[in-house]
Amino acid sequence: MREVGRLILPEVAELLEGGADEEIREALKDLHPADLAEVLDEMSPEHAARVIASLGLQRAARVFELLEEDSQLSLIEHLGRERLGRLVEEMAPDDRVDVIKALPERSRAAILALVAEEEREDIRKLAAYPEGTAGSLMTTDFVTVRPTLTPTETFDHLREEAQGAETVYWLYVVDDNEKLKGVISLRDIVLADPRRCIDEIMERDVITVTAGDDQEQVAGVFSKYDLLAVPVVDDEGRMLGIVTADDVLDVVEEEATEDIFRLAAAGDPTDTDYLEQSVLSISRRRVVWLLLLLVTGFLSALLLDAYEDVRVGLPVLVIFLPFLMGTGGNAGTQAATVVVRGLGTGELEARHVARVLTKEALVGITLGAFLGLLAAGWVYVTRGDLPVAMTVGVAMLVAAIVATSSGAVLPILFQTLGLDPALMSGPFITTVVDVAIIVLYFEIGRAILPPAAAAVGGG
Amino acid sequence: MREVGRLILPEVAELLEGGADEEIREALKDLHPADLAEVLDEMSPEHAARVIASLGLQRAARVFELLEEDSQLSLIEHLGRERLGRLVEEMAPDDRVDVIKALPERSRAAILALVAEEEREDIRKLAAYPEGTAGSLMTTDFVTVRPTLTPTETFDHLREEAQGAETVYWLYVVDDNEKLKGVISLRDIVLADPRRCIDEIMERDVITVTAGDDQEQVAGVFSKYDLLAVPVVDDEGRMLGIVTADDVLDVVEEEATEDIFRLAAAGDPTDTDYLEQSVLSISRRRVVWLLLLLVTGFLSALLLDAYEDVRVGLPVLVIFLPFLMGTGGNAGTQAATVVVRGLGTGELEARHVARVLTKEALVGITLGAFLGLLAAGWVYVTRGDLPVAMTVGVAMLVAAIVATSSGAVLPILFQTLGLDPALMSGPFITTVVDVAIIVLYFEIGRAILPPAAAAVGGG
Repeated sequence: MREVGRLILPEVAELLEGGADEEIREALKDLHPADLAEVLDEMSPEHAARVIASLGLQRAARVFELLEEDSQLSLIEHLGRERLGRLVEEMAPDDRVDVIKALPERSRAAILALVAEEEREDIRKLAAYPEGTAGSLMTTDFVTVRPTLTPTETFDHLREEAQGAETVYWLYVVDDNEKLKGVISLRDIVLADPRRCIDEIMERDVITVTAGDDQEQVAGVFSKYDLLAVPVVDDEGRMLGIVTADDVLDVVEEEATEDIFRLAAAGDPTDTDYLEQSVLSISRRRVVWLLLLLVTGFLSALLLDAYEDVRVGLPVLVIFLPFLMGTGGNAGTQAATVVVRGLGTGELEARHVARVLTKEALVGITLGAFLGLLAAGWVYVTRGDLPVAMTVGVAMLVAAIVATSSGAVLPILFQTLGLDPALMSGPFITTVVDVAIIVLYFEIGRAILPPAAAAVGGG
Repeated sequence: MREVGRLILPEVAELLEGGADEEIREALKDLHPADLAEVLDEMSPEHAARVIASLGLQRAARVFELLEEDSQLSLIEHLGRERLGRLVEEMAPDDRVDVIKALPERSRAAILALVAEEEREDIRKLAAYPEGTAGSLMTTDFVTVRPTLTPTETFDHLREEAQGAETVYWLYVVDDNEKLKGVISLRDIVLADPRRCIDEIMERDVITVTAGDDQEQVAGVFSKYDLLAVPVVDDEGRMLGIVTADDVLDVVEEEATEDIFRLAAAGDPTDTDYLEQSVLSISRRRVVWLLLLLVTGFLSALLLDAYEDVRVGLPVLVIFLPFLMGTGGNAGTQAATVVVRGLGTGELEARHVARVLTKEALVGITLGAFLGLLAAGWVYVTRGDLPVAMTVGVAMLVAAIVATSSGAVLPILFQTLGLDPALMSGPFITTVVDVAIIVLYFEIGRAILPPAAAAVGGG
């Protein structure tokens, strides 16, 4: 494990004050591009631009690819136009498209004008795929071969093509119309009888994804088939690009963060680091959800107002209300989270709704009976009031059942409606359960407690 | 994208009733091992064992590796002893260790007795690494080369070794003491001048992990350096194994699920599918957390009891209590979630505590001022009672600040104490904030509302 980035920063800053490009390049030459990118992310754009300018073009492109988006965008203004054009040409197709997509319209046109026609066309094509699709993840630097080649001819072909390719370990066999006919691994070519041709030794049953497939589906394919790379085809089966496992790793992390944020009703994550975000932009993203939840909050106040007779007549009940709401909300959050994650990883599907609901209702009964007995016992021991203890105990049982059942059903409902089940967040379930608990608790109280208890049990 | 598993199941079941092994093998021969494993996961162990027995040994091992743990364990009893021994020998080292670790002590010894000495030793070594470390993820099927070989000699060596290896695309250069000296990719060997030797063309600055490294750290290394495989070394730098990106993908999903479950106080996830888990085992895992939260719930009841004067004297305040608690809890959950995820992905560290606290406190002020004004306005419009409106508004402001600040600080505190910050879950933050809100709200009420308001504002 390396933590070189932070250590080397002061040293580089000193060099930038006095040193020549030569010295800077020499000092940084042993640094992995990813480590160097981390150092540059912490620097001023002027200094970072000087370091980038001191590097060879290939290394500069690799480092630039690994910078954070913010750093990339601010650096662009400090690099010479000529240099910038070469840099973009040298970058991996999938990474450069991400940078160019992030630029404002005007700068985008200016940069596209700097790169060679072929690269420009490639960027245009890749930029057309919507964010979050296989097309937006793929790179066009892959190696294709014809089915008629022999292993030796393939090696010669590979030596010509290998330089720019993202991977040379899977070669994609295409016909004259660029239709994908098979795949062959470099391992199989190494092991193959040199007298046979690709067509005889390739794997014909290729696992592919389509350019429009959602990135979550793509991650699912990688995970199920244990892949390191997958070809992307169009609707006619023509080869468009490949997605590699390192890009999918980022997708899985991204999707998990999105799920986590949504489950907490914290709004969607952004590309910007938390520490770089302004208080206002953080607040803006969160307030939307708080406002939505505020409305159900108002509803709880209206209900409490309406139950004036119970609230004022039986004030002892009020004491245990937050306690019941808290536990109910927590039980609902648990159920919703388990179901949302199951839907996210594909373990659960909408067709399982009846089984999930039955299971969660039974879990609610189990948890509710246990916690209800505990709560009733505690109330009875501390207050010696059996009717109040029974009310709290029964309300806890009912609250737990309502909570786990809502937690089970609402995310599946969202999924069925084509919405992200993670939007049915813990806080949302909690507010739904809150409202239900107020009504149920006070109705149970009215039923169990004799009107006289108002005077007896009062706070 | 393939969904063949479910479609083919009835067809296979029919074959198993009447057909011979030959026919079964023929019917399934085009199925990818991962798809076949999905089919077998749905079958009875008897049927699945017949299918496994009908396959060639290599294919049987590959399919067996991909089965769910439950299916593997129940299948083991239905496979013949001889067959089982060969199957375990043929499985990938990292996968077979996972199966054997999951077995009860007695069966483990019985199976180990069936496999060849060399494999048994390998299993013992791998099984010794604790779950969740790089050692527990790695496979020992990697290819090493000596630094003195030429590219041509390396190819010859590779042809001998390639059969069993997990990957042949990175060759690990070791000295006579098995110490890792460098790495060379098959790409570079293909491109290399055939007169040079490995020592001259290998990459010396190898990114490695240590066997004891946490799997989350390993995932971080893959993600940062965009790797497809990483060598695992011991403390003396001796090569022990490799971890590949497909295993890391599973780790990232697993860790995300763990974070999500913990953030919802839903207990830790298990390997068993949700639908297969019993109601009791689900309840048992969740009840621990509910009990813990129940205690803070009791505290809220005790506090409400203690504030009898405010509660009974100013009953109008009670109406807005769940509303304040709900919004405060949600704001706290948002802050805690963002901070926990930031700590999880490495974007935030404990040293950022002051910056995070300042930012979240400011977010709390922003959100609290906005929501407080809204709430106060709503109370004033619906009830026409300015002191009560002011009390609710001020309490909302204070509640938001307390909530976001606790959400910021408590996870970082947990991290500093060496605990998983995700244990400082939304529900936990919510109960902490609940208690604070009861005290603050009623104290603010006492301060703002004249004793006379008790009669005026009542219900």
